[in-house]
Amino acid sequence: MTNPTAAMLVIGDEILSGRTRDGNTHYLAGQLTQIGIRLMEVRVVADEAEAIIEAVNALRVRWDTVFTSGGIGPTHDDITAEAIAAAFGVGISQRADALALLQAHYDRSGLEFNEARRRMARIPDGAALIDNPVSIAPGFTIGNVHVMAGVPNIFAAMVASVLPTLTGGAPLLSQSLRVNRGEGEIAGPFGALAAEFPDLSMGSYPFTQNGAFGTNLVIRGSDPARLDAAMTKLCGLFA
Amino acid sequence: MTNPTAAMLVIGDEILSGRTRDGNTHYLAGQLTQIGIRLMEVRVVADEAEAIIEAVNALRVRWDTVFTSGGIGPTHDDITAEAIAAAFGVGISQRADALALLQAHYDRSGLEFNEARRRMARIPDGAALIDNPVSIAPGFTIGNVHVMAGVPNIFAAMVASVLPTLTGGAPLLSQSLRVNRGEGEIAGPFGALAAEFPDLSMGSYPFTQNGAFGTNLVIRGSDPARLDAAMTKLCGLFA
Repeated sequence: MTNPTAAMLVIGDEILSGRTRDGNTHYLAGQLTQIGIRLMEVRVVADEAEAIIEAVNALRVRWDTVFTSGGIGPTHDDITAEAIAAAFGVGISQRADALALLQAHYDRSGLEFNEARRRMARIPDGAALIDNPVSIAPGFTIGNVHVMAGVPNIFAAMVASVLPTLTGGAPLLSQSLRVNRGEGEIAGPFGALAAEFPDLSMGSYPFTQNGAFGTNLVIRGSDPARLDAAMTKLCGLFA
Repeated sequence: MTNPTAAMLVIGDEILSGRTRDGNTHYLAGQLTQIGIRLMEVRVVADEAEAIIEAVNALRVRWDTVFTSGGIGPTHDDITAEAIAAAFGVGISQRADALALLQAHYDRSGLEFNEARRRMARIPDGAALIDNPVSIAPGFTIGNVHVMAGVPNIFAAMVASVLPTLTGGAPLLSQSLRVNRGEGEIAGPFGALAAEFPDLSMGSYPFTQNGAFGTNLVIRGSDPARLDAAMTKLCGLFA
């Protein structure tokens, strides 16, 4: 498959401690699949500059596009913007375009545009702003890296701002068949079918329901005709 | 903090495609925090040998313990055991101890112990089996890497088998204060408090409720007295 590739980097102690369950990865994965971009790798790292820098530099050379989530707010533990600037070896400052957005927002809301809130205008040199219709403070794109907020509804809004700028591929289609048999029973013929369709990806996902074993069989690929052909054979085997 | 460290490696195309939302990481994170082991890094990779080998080799040299989830079932897409053996440079075979467990299980259940099911006895040379009270097919431990199933209730059962074998640290405690103010309002004094307690970790997590902004302020550390002292000051600032 020659679809464009992507990686996700989740930044946040709260995910690693178990306090918060990350949902942004699952959201992004679904969005990317719809436009034919393959999410190939996810990493979660702590709010530590070295960890962020190393991860973003590893991911951005390997995959076409990288998305990050978390650490761009106004508090002392929000260090993502600085870490990304360091990863790219560029400077960072409170930039006029971002300051203007925030100034207008706080003027409208009557809240003080204090030093902490000004921190949200820190943008690495050369980056382009990502629109944030929810709470104004922008994300940014530098090179092939899109740096976004961790709060789920703001993350989703920023993804909506970024996706139209990306080149997708043939949509990644999937069809699935649910069978009331354990994996051990279907594995042989299912593996043979997978070998017959090397251009498709086939996976099996076991579940238990009311104490009985079952399996979801999933076929993925970009060519609808091939997917249909494989699905017809699959149904002949197990349905 | 000198607590032991850990990493999680999630293996599975179904997570990356957005079909399935990983819950094992969040479960493991909570369990590790309770026994004072710090989860430092998470990676999710596809069902591809090279990706698995590279990730497990990167993680096992960096962190004290590595947990993996997924890819140890009977079907053709279950390639984790082979990849782990390759990562350690050891052989792999259907081992007598694992075969005996499975044989007894299928004898009891009256199901055929076929070739696909025998695949679940593939264990790298030198590995120790991890008990699976749910569906018998074992996980395994090799070096500092614990290889476990992806199905959530089986993963949890295997975690329960492994955790008593690990050396934990001082429990990682946390206290939190919920304030009805945005992050931008509390960031200044909260940052100053964090600077005053460099031995503790302080994070702020914004939320919106009924259109109003609020923030959860979280303080983490191992020393209950220090945590109480910081929490008292925090409440003085914002409560």
